[in-house]
Amino acid sequence: MVSTQSPSRLLTQDELKKIAAYKAVEFVESGMVLGLGTGSTAKYAVDRIGELLRQGKLNNIIGIPTSKKTHEQAVSLGIPLSDLDSHPFLDLAIDGADEVDPYLNLVKGRGGSLLREKMVEGACKKFVVIVDESKLVKHVGASGLAIPVEIVPFCWKFTAQRLQALFEDADIGDLKAASDAILRLAGVVEHGMFLDMATTVIVAGELGITVKNK
Amino acid sequence: MVSTQSPSRLLTQDELKKIAAYKAVEFVESGMVLGLGTGSTAKYAVDRIGELLRQGKLNNIIGIPTSKKTHEQAVSLGIPLSDLDSHPFLDLAIDGADEVDPYLNLVKGRGGSLLREKMVEGACKKFVVIVDESKLVKHVGASGLAIPVEIVPFCWKFTAQRLQALFEDADIGDLKAASDAILRLAGVVEHGMFLDMATTVIVAGELGITVKNK
Repeated sequence: MVSTQSPSRLLTQDELKKIAAYKAVEFVESGMVLGLGTGSTAKYAVDRIGELLRQGKLNNIIGIPTSKKTHEQAVSLGIPLSDLDSHPFLDLAIDGADEVDPYLNLVKGRGGSLLREKMVEGACKKFVVIVDESKLVKHVGASGLAIPVEIVPFCWKFTAQRLQALFEDADIGDLKAASDAILRLAGVVEHGMFLDMATTVIVAGELGITVKNK
Repeated sequence: MVSTQSPSRLLTQDELKKIAAYKAVEFVESGMVLGLGTGSTAKYAVDRIGELLRQGKLNNIIGIPTSKKTHEQAVSLGIPLSDLDSHPFLDLAIDGADEVDPYLNLVKGRGGSLLREKMVEGACKKFVVIVDESKLVKHVGASGLAIPVEIVPFCWKFTAQRLQALFEDADIGDLKAASDAILRLAGVVEHGMFLDMATTVIVAGELGITVKNK
């Protein structure tokens, strides 16, 4: 007997995430103010940045974490940190996404760090998104999973009902109009569509890495 | 000596507010679900509703207060209360405003209850605004006072800087575009421009009451 292995599953999803993350960190240069993303893919990028700092291959980096979890990870790696109040202009952010459409519009926030991510990644000159190929969609919402919306606790059921009515009526094809309609609802803080924000998307797949630029 | 009185100051501002408030309460009918506003002018309307309930001239009213303060006032007057989760559709709301432009667009929120007011008053069939004539402006922002914006605490200085930059660049003449631009800033929850929401504005002035309908 010869042991066989399916040729269609050479790399695990975790390995693909790591490959994309390492590729993204090649964009990092010493002296940069860096947005540090949140989630299972971004975690690999933050690990890698910590490693390069330790090895002396990068220095003088200031990280702006997008969540408490990333903050803790970066502290444990010895990455110097700051915040948007002190550093309102960032050179680069690296983060994952839940969906990426052909125009590099994203859905994010299923990991729960939507608002901080949008604030940090909206303040960056370059925003590099890292995903495995399972996150590519033909259009925003195509994964069939919810688009996260952050709302205020006050009368949240009321706001949830309004959102539901809006999504039933809205033409999700016009993303900017849909975005404005959601934001106009009093009680909504932010939503998970990141439109016109990513400058580069790095996709890791079985057949290699694809880098898509805006 | 004969004591003289300036003929141009027959009524105090408080008296004008009360006159407008009482006029607005004429719109209230038994059985209505009512949004109860916040502030020195709305207070008179809530007082008056309580009085008419006590006198049996109104009954079966359900009030939806727009602040804790109004909640407490209404409780003390014995007005039955509910919230938007239980009553997502309101018949009528009565509230004051900081500015009213000729198209019945408002600036509100200097009293601090911006978000709840916008949620409640956006859920009403009719929204009656009560002001003394000092609140009338030629265009939104003309009073020279700030337009309140509610933002999240996280990195609030950063968001405040972005807002400042936006107001320096924005064409405040196009109110809807300005509104969308403010709401698009991650970190902003809500702003104090109430556009296309008021259906009636009652203005009390030295020369009487003016009722403006949309």
